[in-house]
Amino acid sequence: MNAVVLLSGGLDSCTTAAIARSEGYTIHALTVRYGQRHSAELAAARRVARALAVANHLELPLDLRAIGGSSLTSDEPVPHHRDPAASGIPSTYVPARNTLFLSLALGWAEVIGAFDIFIGVNALDYSGYPDCRPEFIAAFEQLAGLATRAGVEGHRFKVHAPLITLSKAEIIRRGLALGVDYGLTHSCYDPDAEGQPCGSCDSCTIRARGFADAGVADPALRRS
Amino acid sequence: MNAVVLLSGGLDSCTTAAIARSEGYTIHALTVRYGQRHSAELAAARRVARALAVANHLELPLDLRAIGGSSLTSDEPVPHHRDPAASGIPSTYVPARNTLFLSLALGWAEVIGAFDIFIGVNALDYSGYPDCRPEFIAAFEQLAGLATRAGVEGHRFKVHAPLITLSKAEIIRRGLALGVDYGLTHSCYDPDAEGQPCGSCDSCTIRARGFADAGVADPALRRS
Repeated sequence: MNAVVLLSGGLDSCTTAAIARSEGYTIHALTVRYGQRHSAELAAARRVARALAVANHLELPLDLRAIGGSSLTSDEPVPHHRDPAASGIPSTYVPARNTLFLSLALGWAEVIGAFDIFIGVNALDYSGYPDCRPEFIAAFEQLAGLATRAGVEGHRFKVHAPLITLSKAEIIRRGLALGVDYGLTHSCYDPDAEGQPCGSCDSCTIRARGFADAGVADPALRRS
Repeated sequence: MNAVVLLSGGLDSCTTAAIARSEGYTIHALTVRYGQRHSAELAAARRVARALAVANHLELPLDLRAIGGSSLTSDEPVPHHRDPAASGIPSTYVPARNTLFLSLALGWAEVIGAFDIFIGVNALDYSGYPDCRPEFIAAFEQLAGLATRAGVEGHRFKVHAPLITLSKAEIIRRGLALGVDYGLTHSCYDPDAEGQPCGSCDSCTIRARGFADAGVADPALRRS
């Protein structure tokens, strides 16, 4: 059974892809090159796609810098040493990003005859992004049925978000049990020129706490 | 009040933009360069944007040819001499196109602080595309509130589809009453090398019937 899996190169999407594979899906990985300020994430997506032996890997350019509105798609600095659980949505929020990513996944899924889409959103250890919540995923599934020829013909699209209620430590334990090599992944919003993580952005902070809580070392930190 | 208006360069989106302007909105026009096989549509979008004196016009590249699945984004021939009202969705359907377009409009709207999005979909004189129906628009509005920071903060996005229940002739009469110059617009799916309409694709057929029913000549046919 075919599935489209959104693959960023981060810890969550890598675990999500491993889960999809463990459930027997043939993986069509979709990476959106949306104008992130670093290429470390894209390199990680390629490493993960290769390691998981995906059926194919589509890298789609969509330059969201033209729209802006986020420190990930503009020259605004990424925040450091913040508590990711602090109230408010941080500047790393990219307007409508997951709506766009799921729309692209939906279009591709319809073309290849897949009705399953996997996305690694998480609503527990996260930065409070609105498009990571279960009610957003449910609303997108509703829309997908109305938006497509496949939906009109009676197919039902399922958006799988297997990490949505897990803690970061639980995600890591789940991935390790599936044989995921987290040394291949990249989470940092603000790596140095060599692609090494900063250690202090939200994404690094959440990742470090996750590995600490899981009681294992982060293999990506040994890479250098 | 700011509004994002999806502008393809066709008759419907041009009329929609004129309606938005007549309602007092400041227009931020968004044209998606999605890999259409012809540039006549993009040239028309620029002419219309200029004629309507929009506040700004963003052309965003998003190459849907990588996804394919449509005769508009692949080398598959566009159908000619078809009855647009025939049952079934034709090959010109682009998977998830309006979902993508509205997602891009939503992202831009959130960045510029607009909560109104205009789209020229029509569910009467059309080719049966699923993402032109009122229930699709309603589902997207629902999604928009859940997907965005603005939605979480209590703003409500409104997707205006002022043409959705009009016949093509009614759309044309409405536009003419607003001073629209349809000579600037381009509807054909399969123009020749000079950008002249083929006269026999669905889009040309629907347009010709609309002008005939409205009892006026199509000024675009005099351009050459």
